[in-house]
Amino acid sequence: MLDPNQTPDANDSWNSPTEWLRGEGEANDVVLSSRARLARNIAGCPFVPRASRVDRVRSLDAARAAIMAGPLAPQMLWLNLHEAKILDRQILVERHLISKQLSKGRAGQGTGATEDPRGVAVSADERLSIMVNEEDHLRIQSIRSGLALAAAYREVDEADDAMERSLRLAFSPRFGYLTACPTNVGTGLRMSVMLHLPGLRLTGDIERVKRAAADMNLAVRGFYGEGSEAVGDLYQISNQTTLGRTEAAIIASLETEILPRVIEYERLSRRELTSRRRLGLEDQVWRAFGVLSSARLLTTEEAMQCLSLLRLGVLTGVIGPELCDVSRVHQMMLLVHPAHLQRALGVSLDQEQRRAARAGLVRGRLASRT
Amino acid sequence: MLDPNQTPDANDSWNSPTEWLRGEGEANDVVLSSRARLARNIAGCPFVPRASRVDRVRSLDAARAAIMAGPLAPQMLWLNLHEAKILDRQILVERHLISKQLSKGRAGQGTGATEDPRGVAVSADERLSIMVNEEDHLRIQSIRSGLALAAAYREVDEADDAMERSLRLAFSPRFGYLTACPTNVGTGLRMSVMLHLPGLRLTGDIERVKRAAADMNLAVRGFYGEGSEAVGDLYQISNQTTLGRTEAAIIASLETEILPRVIEYERLSRRELTSRRRLGLEDQVWRAFGVLSSARLLTTEEAMQCLSLLRLGVLTGVIGPELCDVSRVHQMMLLVHPAHLQRALGVSLDQEQRRAARAGLVRGRLASRT
Repeated sequence: MLDPNQTPDANDSWNSPTEWLRGEGEANDVVLSSRARLARNIAGCPFVPRASRVDRVRSLDAARAAIMAGPLAPQMLWLNLHEAKILDRQILVERHLISKQLSKGRAGQGTGATEDPRGVAVSADERLSIMVNEEDHLRIQSIRSGLALAAAYREVDEADDAMERSLRLAFSPRFGYLTACPTNVGTGLRMSVMLHLPGLRLTGDIERVKRAAADMNLAVRGFYGEGSEAVGDLYQISNQTTLGRTEAAIIASLETEILPRVIEYERLSRRELTSRRRLGLEDQVWRAFGVLSSARLLTTEEAMQCLSLLRLGVLTGVIGPELCDVSRVHQMMLLVHPAHLQRALGVSLDQEQRRAARAGLVRGRLASRT
Repeated sequence: MLDPNQTPDANDSWNSPTEWLRGEGEANDVVLSSRARLARNIAGCPFVPRASRVDRVRSLDAARAAIMAGPLAPQMLWLNLHEAKILDRQILVERHLISKQLSKGRAGQGTGATEDPRGVAVSADERLSIMVNEEDHLRIQSIRSGLALAAAYREVDEADDAMERSLRLAFSPRFGYLTACPTNVGTGLRMSVMLHLPGLRLTGDIERVKRAAADMNLAVRGFYGEGSEAVGDLYQISNQTTLGRTEAAIIASLETEILPRVIEYERLSRRELTSRRRLGLEDQVWRAFGVLSSARLLTTEEAMQCLSLLRLGVLTGVIGPELCDVSRVHQMMLLVHPAHLQRALGVSLDQEQRRAARAGLVRGRLASRT
């Protein structure tokens, strides 16, 4: 799966849905995926932002050894990102397996971004990934389709335990796990869900949800985390507090209190749209279908926006199963992204060429009714 | 044709293309139609804007007699607009056979708009129409498909002669024909063409054409004359000067000097779009096709805008003949208008209902590939 020399073909695993687009699990009409992430650092190594190149090579080697020579090894694949091609790094970003920040690497301090020593270990099922030398030495994340925060937490917790057998982690009895940025100190845990909220956007209630989430000290962000726009009506909701609360308390408040309410609110708005505002909904959904099956040039953003409406259309029955289903929408949601698009077509394309290729690919996928 | 009690059916002549959408004649890729219009007034009757109701009844009776009891009678149908239903008046406006102003009538002076005595005579082929009690007692117009100003002028000139056999017209040896508004004094002639200029809009050169036309003392207006927007990339270009130039000079300057240049400019822009900017053109045209075949709610303006791009697509070969042709585009350009839409469906609809019905009608027309 992580072989960059793999020839692209119909069975290319890059084309298959990754965890956040598998469309399984609880409340998957609204919750695309749940994610748990632990921030950890290796004791005795300077934090990444202050580390020299030599320090980073050291932390990279130590982390890789702990992963690839430890109990996790059988399921994990390792990739040195400083040696990986840009396209492969982008693929990992688009699959949510590494952050944009890790993909780019750090410039400055005499090290070019390409040479910045850093890597990632990914499990074959793409649920578990461990980023090395991102903001912290270790960022252990697990993604699960649907609403499954407890399961995601269990996986990162076990991976953390597995690594601690061979690595000594920076820990303070008073503060808990120490991290490069103080906002992560303590549990080092961030739980988040990726929600699809087209109903709340169409009814105009999305701003109210955002304000309510902010009041509860939750961060609401767009598709690719901090600072990114909510492309395709996809929102990330995550906890902001890592200090002074147990992991169980963080998960319980999200999974049993807050998220059920947001999910219900989105479902209510969809019911409102399918009953009293049906014609307006149908118009929006069919126009999106029209753009996707007609346009000759498509940006990623417009494609995602139309696919969002198409997903809503499929889930509300506006678009019948003979025209499209959720799994096909999810597949397109991945393939319209630049790296996946180029990978699927097996060619390198500039921005203008990508727009044409993206439109062609989407038209083809919508036209083939199989 | 003018029978308001006619039952709507597939053979309803209201559904058939009227002259400005017949798609025939010279340069019909760019010029939809040519129009000649004479403003005339009956001597001894006060001008319409200053006439009492009694005066208007008098001028109406005199005009109707001159038309319907004179040499024009065999080809003309008469309609008292103060007795006509709103929908029928709107139909005539949409077919460009009467002006909006005549359709509305004048309020004030103790006469409601409905009772304001006014009428129109229309020839069976819908080329010639004579409005009575618009701004002038008589507005004689002829519309011809394509570039055919001389033929249009010939028809109004002959109609003018025919009426003068029984009517004495207000004429001054010094100024020529006298009219209610001084801008029409002299020949009383206004020549205009309806141009379809999507190419110039897409290349951004339309503003330059407008400025050049203004410099030549030509008026450039939108779809429904003065003050209206250029819906569907349709522009009217007309002469502004009626005094001090002969009819022949007015026609010659338009038909042999100015219009050939505008037509060539539009054709050049279409060639530019189909060669160096082909992909952008295809994207625009196909998106319009996508909206027309997918949307569930359409305003007249959006429908006309999309139909404009569809017409361009058909003429440039982007849309193949198996999907659509010009005559079908023209038919839709007429049917998307409110009165034609309601007439075609045989029901009275409010604005929201019309949007849904319009979208349905257009989808149906595009889907039936016959």
